[in-house]
Amino acid sequence: MTQYDDANIFARILRGEIPSQRVYEDAETVAFMDVMPQGPGHLLVVPKAPSRNLLDADPAVLARLIPVVQKLARAAKTAFAADGVTVMQFNEPASGQTVFHLHFHIIPRFDGEPLHPHTGAMEKPEILAENAERVRAALNAN
Amino acid sequence: MTQYDDANIFARILRGEIPSQRVYEDAETVAFMDVMPQGPGHLLVVPKAPSRNLLDADPAVLARLIPVVQKLARAAKTAFAADGVTVMQFNEPASGQTVFHLHFHIIPRFDGEPLHPHTGAMEKPEILAENAERVRAALNAN
Repeated sequence: MTQYDDANIFARILRGEIPSQRVYEDAETVAFMDVMPQGPGHLLVVPKAPSRNLLDADPAVLARLIPVVQKLARAAKTAFAADGVTVMQFNEPASGQTVFHLHFHIIPRFDGEPLHPHTGAMEKPEILAENAERVRAALNAN
Repeated sequence: MTQYDDANIFARILRGEIPSQRVYEDAETVAFMDVMPQGPGHLLVVPKAPSRNLLDADPAVLARLIPVVQKLARAAKTAFAADGVTVMQFNEPASGQTVFHLHFHIIPRFDGEPLHPHTGAMEKPEILAENAERVRAALNAN
């Protein structure tokens, strides 16, 4: 198993070295908008504890993380009036993982619209800010 | 929110009304091979507690389920000498959910091989049996 490298971009976001559109934070977890979204409202839920992915994570960290994933999935569905939500979690490059700090993808989905591929195109900051505000509003409404 | 319907196929598998290739069971969880795999070793982790998907699940059930998802992801990676593992969880038809009992997909992944689409083609029972035996052996080896 490759070692965790704390220079990864999510570790830097967690340390505040790189800006992000945060929508949720508690003692152990942060959620923020994916800057290369596969659809409007695509967000990431990330534990503060270091692990490369699910395979090397502390099970106790996972147990406290997944209810937050649920909370954000519900909020994202509400915020974008989505018909469904896709949750994905990738482990190692063969699966599509590109940042090696454990994260769950939450992607609002709409009837008749296929999941957009990951293109690597950056979303405009003002769109990310607007979408983050919608998620925060949905969280506050619960 | 649509109500949970206990005539769904995973509820019937949990009740033993429909056969499955089980690889893991504990008091609250069952894991079995997906009969329409998107790759060799594609398996499903399912809580015994009824919920339609992640959105209406009991957070306490989720907290006990996710360490089992981790355990099966590790076992599947080992069993198939995979390079990575994709974990997916779909909520509502817009996301691709077709069986309305909460389940996590675990799909072993291999460098250079894209994720196969969900075709609906049934795998041969003898292949499923052989793959299940590999996962059981990996679980027992830990």
